[in-house]
Amino acid sequence: MTTRFDPRDPDFEPRVRASFARQRAMQTIGAQIVRVEPGEVELALPFREDLTQQHGFLHAGIVTTLVDSACGYAALSVMDRESAVLSVEYKVNLLAPALGERMRAVGRVIKAGRTLVVCTGEVLAVTGDTESVVTLMQATMMAVRGRPALVD
Amino acid sequence: MTTRFDPRDPDFEPRVRASFARQRAMQTIGAQIVRVEPGEVELALPFREDLTQQHGFLHAGIVTTLVDSACGYAALSVMDRESAVLSVEYKVNLLAPALGERMRAVGRVIKAGRTLVVCTGEVLAVTGDTESVVTLMQATMMAVRGRPALVD
Amino acid sequence: MTTRFDPRDPDFEPRVRASFARQRAMQTIGAQIVRVEPGEVELALPFREDLTQQHGFLHAGIVTTLVDSACGYAALSVMDRESAVLSVEYKVNLLAPALGERMRAVGRVIKAGRTLVVCTGEVLAVTGDTESVVTLMQATMMAVRGRPALVD
Amino acid sequence: MTTRFDPRDPDFEPRVRASFARQRAMQTIGAQIVRVEPGEVELALPFREDLTQQHGFLHAGIVTTLVDSACGYAALSVMDRESAVLSVEYKVNLLAPALGERMRAVGRVIKAGRTLVVCTGEVLAVTGDTESVVTLMQATMMAVRGRPALVD
Repeated sequence: MTTRFDPRDPDFEPRVRASFARQRAMQTIGAQIVRVEPGEVELALPFREDLTQQHGFLHAGIVTTLVDSACGYAALSVMDRESAVLSVEYKVNLLAPALGERMRAVGRVIKAGRTLVVCTGEVLAVTGDTESVVTLMQATMMAVRGRPALVD
Repeated sequence: MTTRFDPRDPDFEPRVRASFARQRAMQTIGAQIVRVEPGEVELALPFREDLTQQHGFLHAGIVTTLVDSACGYAALSVMDRESAVLSVEYKVNLLAPALGERMRAVGRVIKAGRTLVVCTGEVLAVTGDTESVVTLMQATMMAVRGRPALVD
Repeated sequence: MTTRFDPRDPDFEPRVRASFARQRAMQTIGAQIVRVEPGEVELALPFREDLTQQHGFLHAGIVTTLVDSACGYAALSVMDRESAVLSVEYKVNLLAPALGERMRAVGRVIKAGRTLVVCTGEVLAVTGDTESVVTLMQATMMAVRGRPALVD
Repeated sequence: MTTRFDPRDPDFEPRVRASFARQRAMQTIGAQIVRVEPGEVELALPFREDLTQQHGFLHAGIVTTLVDSACGYAALSVMDRESAVLSVEYKVNLLAPALGERMRAVGRVIKAGRTLVVCTGEVLAVTGDTESVVTLMQATMMAVRGRPALVD
């Protein structure tokens, strides 16, 4: 179902990386940007005990934070230069406890409309050479134009 | 649509509060537990710039983290003593930027089955005397029994 | 959380009713329009065995069809005259088997933006004087303008 | 992300086909079962004008009905003989108008737990040799055991 996307802004990669660098929440949880392609962005998050829920797994919301950013930046990577990206809504299934040395979140654009961009995301828990899907996201992102306070 | 729920565990409130206190992620983001009733839990999160996305709003995932815990603990409040709570899945609509002095998240049980508990949640941005809904959640929580590593 | 909405089109009610009358699927399943208010629409569906799944309950998708129309028309009721309505996405929880003399679906607008309208919906199974919630929806609807083939 | 699944019931295919044949709603809308594999089921629906919404597209709810059955039977195909399948919840994105000679819905199991099975589904509109994705689903299905009224 994966489609290749032509970026509308040839400078999509530095734009995505610069916007990611402004997400203070990403720094606070320790997330890094791994890969930026047209319509696909990968982030990584080393496991940290101060981000866990009561049983010692990464909190579902923290995993969601990571994959929301992955999907949001996948969407931004195919938007024109005038657009900023906002999350409209998403749905997440927690398939397995988020336990591992680190999490790898991949966001992919499925449909890029002028205003709305639909993405899927997955989070994989990685330990050594092993990885397994722990979370699945289906998300709607929005291209916002003409609002000077919102720049990406 | 709100229904009163009879708690199956008379000690539901200290149990919810103790489990919340073990959520390291809640301490890391600075969330507090405000109110615990049978089938309804309220949390609060003062605004912090280190939890924002690139435009200066609270990151959608952080808002989700808060309301996921509110819904999860609303679900736990109506579960029997043998059950631990896990998030199965949720869907979130981001209605407006999460900007304000603090966020108030309320999770409510809509249907309490033996295994699955369905909740709705909302997050309100509060500034002075004004508050407005910024996020809406619909979530499925699961009662997990007989797994010694999972205790609530 | 319910908010009153001022309709942007004073003729919202006949417009909603006329569009509903053009939904051939509503006639096919036997749905009727019950009530149209600004931001709230109610539909009804008598139980029919030819709309059931394998255990004799109304098919989840048929219940979804009903509440999707209720939410879509709740959204249309607050849109301006130039807008047609399309469903962007929705999420549904099936709380209980859809069994009863008839289903009652209520769609409500929670947030009415210029382009996107967020709604919640519920379906109640009605038998005699008893009714209970069987389905919960959270939906995003879109106002489409300037596409002559799409008129509401 | 696709995983092969070993069926727990070697007779999974006739069981899925027999249950599908009992879904009266599938007959009413004219859906057919195309393919049954362990963890993957495909259905087809010829376009019919009496299943449309107000603009002449297949109603989003009818498309959902089709892909809900595809996901539900994908889930049943990996369940043990004692289990019946029920839809717990799903989320659907409507990517493009459902227009075409027929719709093709594919449901796939992503994670098969003992009680909950998570699936993704897509609906493709087919006209001649051309097809395109019009709908995306992420769904949670439940294995129900020990309830004599629920047999699959």
